Amino acid sequence: MGNIHPTAIISASAKLHKSVTIGPFSIVNENVEIGENTYIGAFCEIGTRNNLCKTDRLVIGKESIIRSHSVLYLGSVFADKLETGHHVTLRENLLVGSNLRVGSYSDLQGDMQIGNYSRIQSNVHLCKFTKIGNFVFIYQFSITTNDPTPPSEIINPSFIDDFAVLSVGSTILPGITIGKHALVGANSTVTKNVEPYSLVLGSPARKIKDVRLVKSRANTNEMAYPWHKHFKRGLPDLTTEILGNN
Amino acid sequence: MGNIHPTAIISASAKLHKSVTIGPFSIVNENVEIGENTYIGAFCEIGTRNNLCKTDRLVIGKESIIRSHSVLYLGSVFADKLETGHHVTLRENLLVGSNLRVGSYSDLQGDMQIGNYSRIQSNVHLCKFTKIGNFVFIYQFSITTNDPTPPSEIINPSFIDDFAVLSVGSTILPGITIGKHALVGANSTVTKNVEPYSLVLGSPARKIKDVRLVKSRANTNEMAYPWHKHFKRGLPDLTTEILGNN
Amino acid sequence: MGNIHPTAIISASAKLHKSVTIGPFSIVNENVEIGENTYIGAFCEIGTRNNLCKTDRLVIGKESIIRSHSVLYLGSVFADKLETGHHVTLRENLLVGSNLRVGSYSDLQGDMQIGNYSRIQSNVHLCKFTKIGNFVFIYQFSITTNDPTPPSEIINPSFIDDFAVLSVGSTILPGITIGKHALVGANSTVTKNVEPYSLVLGSPARKIKDVRLVKSRANTNEMAYPWHKHFKRGLPDLTTEILGNN
Repeated sequence: MGNIHPTAIISASAKLHKSVTIGPFSIVNENVEIGENTYIGAFCEIGTRNNLCKTDRLVIGKESIIRSHSVLYLGSVFADKLETGHHVTLRENLLVGSNLRVGSYSDLQGDMQIGNYSRIQSNVHLCKFTKIGNFVFIYQFSITTNDPTPPSEIINPSFIDDFAVLSVGSTILPGITIGKHALVGANSTVTKNVEPYSLVLGSPARKIKDVRLVKSRANTNEMAYPWHKHFKRGLPDLTTEILGNN
Repeated sequence: MGNIHPTAIISASAKLHKSVTIGPFSIVNENVEIGENTYIGAFCEIGTRNNLCKTDRLVIGKESIIRSHSVLYLGSVFADKLETGHHVTLRENLLVGSNLRVGSYSDLQGDMQIGNYSRIQSNVHLCKFTKIGNFVFIYQFSITTNDPTPPSEIINPSFIDDFAVLSVGSTILPGITIGKHALVGANSTVTKNVEPYSLVLGSPARKIKDVRLVKSRANTNEMAYPWHKHFKRGLPDLTTEILGNN
Repeated sequence: MGNIHPTAIISASAKLHKSVTIGPFSIVNENVEIGENTYIGAFCEIGTRNNLCKTDRLVIGKESIIRSHSVLYLGSVFADKLETGHHVTLRENLLVGSNLRVGSYSDLQGDMQIGNYSRIQSNVHLCKFTKIGNFVFIYQFSITTNDPTPPSEIINPSFIDDFAVLSVGSTILPGITIGKHALVGANSTVTKNVEPYSLVLGSPARKIKDVRLVKSRANTNEMAYPWHKHFKRGLPDLTTEILGNN
């Protein structure tokens, strides 16, 4: 019946499915549901409440891994196989597909939708109402923003479409769409929409070329993008049937 | 008489005023004074000691909120209504006005003065001896520095004056004054003093225009700056009587 | 015989040498060895296991200080006098010399070698296989990367040689060598190898001058670099005999 550490504090109203592990000193609050075979490390707070939570409930799908010192708010639903690093903060009202990975110290500010199989590396800050597609990669120290003239009451969030890649240090200004399969180069400040399959770079970011013209640095004749043709780790088989003819 | 979780460890010499909440597994060390109605979340260490603390005391004003996994050192005095995110580190010898907000993962390195109603968002790093005025907004991944030729023994801190705004990714080099109502654009590296009411942008940051010429993106004829004319959330009434004729 | 807080959880197979302190609610897992006079703060997890650990063992040298909320994996060996800030993550398979300092929130991703007396400030992200020499200084929000076309299976790590300095916000692209005594200016993106004694700046970083031509900002006739001629804090006596004639 799982492995709940004796120092963990589990609300009587939390629903833990079979074979759930809860580490030392972790807290699972009321109205939390945790799917089977999920592992929660030490020093986590699962089911933090604030007055912005749209529901009084948190669902974490089966076979998930939440590493130590993480905080997950009420109001969110994570499909199966969520995996987080240490010290993450996942705020209220996240609607998340399966197989999301979120690296250490990353902060998802709430009211977001995220598709399946997206990978958010460590130290990423995603502001409220950011929308993330499927198979999106967001690298360290990247940030989305939603206020064009801070501070103001305007909220104009961004959308990162399927298969897009934000390299380390990407800053996405408010209201931007990053198109499918686009690539934002390191330390770029994106001030305009990015077309599908575009590589953009700089501050402000400008189009450099089509990503399909970027050669792999491996000793091959492959092109590096679209990346799903050669990068498979932890991902399902992405056949042309699924993806169309791109 | 408040709500101290039974797993919390509270020093006998700590002074908790009425209706203080201390979350599970939190630690309140000796010589800490916590004002009434203050909430401290789980996994916090309040009153960390090191040999740089100028006093043996920490004061947290009333009606404050300290979220989980935060660390506050001895030697500091916070006026009322301090509010922090998760995982913050507030080091020794901070002298802070009322209504300071500090976002998750931010790190205030100590020996700082901060005015009233300033808002430091998440992932901000403020180095020792930085001085922050009133109603200052500092956005994510911004940093102040004090060593012009690192590493050296020179300490030349910066000053962010009242109503100034540092957008995401602002880097303030040592010894800089950011003038009242100034605005630093996203991902700028500020290498010279910024005049009051100036918008600066770039690396190195250059003056783009007077902030009073920046239009609001809302569907209005308003100007976006000075921001206090239209942004009121969580702030007192800032009448022209208080602010002068700016 | 040391000072183990009664709430700490210490594995029976952990080996604690004399005068070790373990703070409240901290966890020391099996196969961890902690040298004498070492201090471990609260809420730490020491000896985290994953399936990438090359050994089943973690060694922390004597006279070390690990501050609160830190996570250290199995598979690493730290020589004496390791010192960390709060909330650090030190992953598996680190082989580290003496006197390493790692600031708060920094994340060393594993499989790294680090020399003696290097100083990694806070909020630094070092990717897998990064190699760091002796007396290296890496400032806040700096990052190393190893994947030239993310995401891919290519791993091309970087090397930061002895006495090099990475200023705040340095991004080191994959496969780069930063030469001895080199200086990377604030917020630079380094895309090519940096020669010894070079000051580089910008995105992409370009050589500005020889570091030995950078004047100190102190009121002296000193040059600022090589820094070891005037900066001594916490470091051994670096005589010309040790360093050669540089």
